[in-house]
Amino acid sequence: MATVWPISNGRPKIRSGANTSSGRALVITCGVPSKPRSSCPIGWGAQCYLRHMVGDRSQRRRDVLETSTNLLHEGGWAALTMREVAARTGVSAGALYQWFDGKDEIYAELFTARLNRGIAQFDAMPDDLPFDDVLASMLRWVQTTWITLGRWQLDYSDIARGREPGQARSALSEAYRHILEVGSVKLQAAAEREGRRFLDDLDTMHMIWGIAAGIAQRAEILQMETERVDQMMERAVRSLSAGLTESA
Amino acid sequence: MATVWPISNGRPKIRSGANTSSGRALVITCGVPSKPRSSCPIGWGAQCYLRHMVGDRSQRRRDVLETSTNLLHEGGWAALTMREVAARTGVSAGALYQWFDGKDEIYAELFTARLNRGIAQFDAMPDDLPFDDVLASMLRWVQTTWITLGRWQLDYSDIARGREPGQARSALSEAYRHILEVGSVKLQAAAEREGRRFLDDLDTMHMIWGIAAGIAQRAEILQMETERVDQMMERAVRSLSAGLTESA
Repeated sequence: MATVWPISNGRPKIRSGANTSSGRALVITCGVPSKPRSSCPIGWGAQCYLRHMVGDRSQRRRDVLETSTNLLHEGGWAALTMREVAARTGVSAGALYQWFDGKDEIYAELFTARLNRGIAQFDAMPDDLPFDDVLASMLRWVQTTWITLGRWQLDYSDIARGREPGQARSALSEAYRHILEVGSVKLQAAAEREGRRFLDDLDTMHMIWGIAAGIAQRAEILQMETERVDQMMERAVRSLSAGLTESA
Repeated sequence: MATVWPISNGRPKIRSGANTSSGRALVITCGVPSKPRSSCPIGWGAQCYLRHMVGDRSQRRRDVLETSTNLLHEGGWAALTMREVAARTGVSAGALYQWFDGKDEIYAELFTARLNRGIAQFDAMPDDLPFDDVLASMLRWVQTTWITLGRWQLDYSDIARGREPGQARSALSEAYRHILEVGSVKLQAAAEREGRRFLDDLDTMHMIWGIAAGIAQRAEILQMETERVDQMMERAVRSLSAGLTESA
């Protein structure tokens, strides 16, 4: 994460802007001409130049996402503000708003990335897993997702539904649709191997997601210890397993 | 809800609603001692005094709770502030803090009242209901509870766990423990009537609560229509039913 130095008394300020061949780079100004580098009055010459070069657009975008994640984990939804993200990353508000229309778009991008990692994980599941193990893996994945990001999904959707659907929101919807689809295929295949049929009708996958998130939330509210939560999740798998399938 | 006129130039301020034998009355203060009543500078003496008298403690406490519920439903957790509750009800901040140490205590009292109504409802369930119907009633009750109050439970617990356990929090814990107990007894009795045994081990009742709340939350995030949510809840009951019981 980029550190921010405020401008004062000739100290450098990390600004945004400047196109380079590798994308947008950081512009550092300290009010004193720094070319040649050796003339840099605060002795940062080479380092300063280096930062110019490495601080490209994609890196700063990653900084924004990482910083946003940290803010969420430090102080929850209210702590994630465009102003604070800008301050912590040294990206100007103008540049930040060029990338994201608001904190909900940052959140959507974080959540999409998480879903895409989940899709890859679901895809990589061994083909011989029993149905209960596939279901357990999915519940646990949603549980972890709820803990790290999902708990703010309602806050996100409160904002998101108040504005025009943008690219970030579409990507999130698409990734959500996709992971449920992959999950359904995996559960169906596992059920078939056991001579059963997975009853994927009437929003079953949404329901499974809700169940896992709800249990995770209950555990958080009651401040349950990990072992107890694990047992509750196992209990959920055993309770649900039979009801989600029927003889083929 | 009472309209609030700001105090200025000795004009009366209508503060909160109060019950009288003839309905809701207003509490009026004008910042001038009104005893004896004849000394009231705005000529409202008797009426003013009367209204002072009828605006009793328990009524104003009910006003605070009703106003807090409205604030939650209008603007969520952030909208519920002691300052706003005081402003809307005309209760002084001092009095408000005598009753409640903070918004979390108001919330705890609201939630406790909701749980106590739920306990009465669970208790009143007909004795011949099938297991699935008992389970469905409970899931629906938790669903409605989540919609009206439960969605802020995590916000509440974030605050509550940072302070000494008080009376409001103990009452809430007790009511929660009690409703799970009543629910468990009802499910057990229904299962027994069907020659089954309800598997109430390993936090099963917490799990059932979490499942219902999680589905309610998913439905809210996805903005599902009522009918679709009802179907998903039915689906949950059917999926869980067998797994929650075994042959006796």
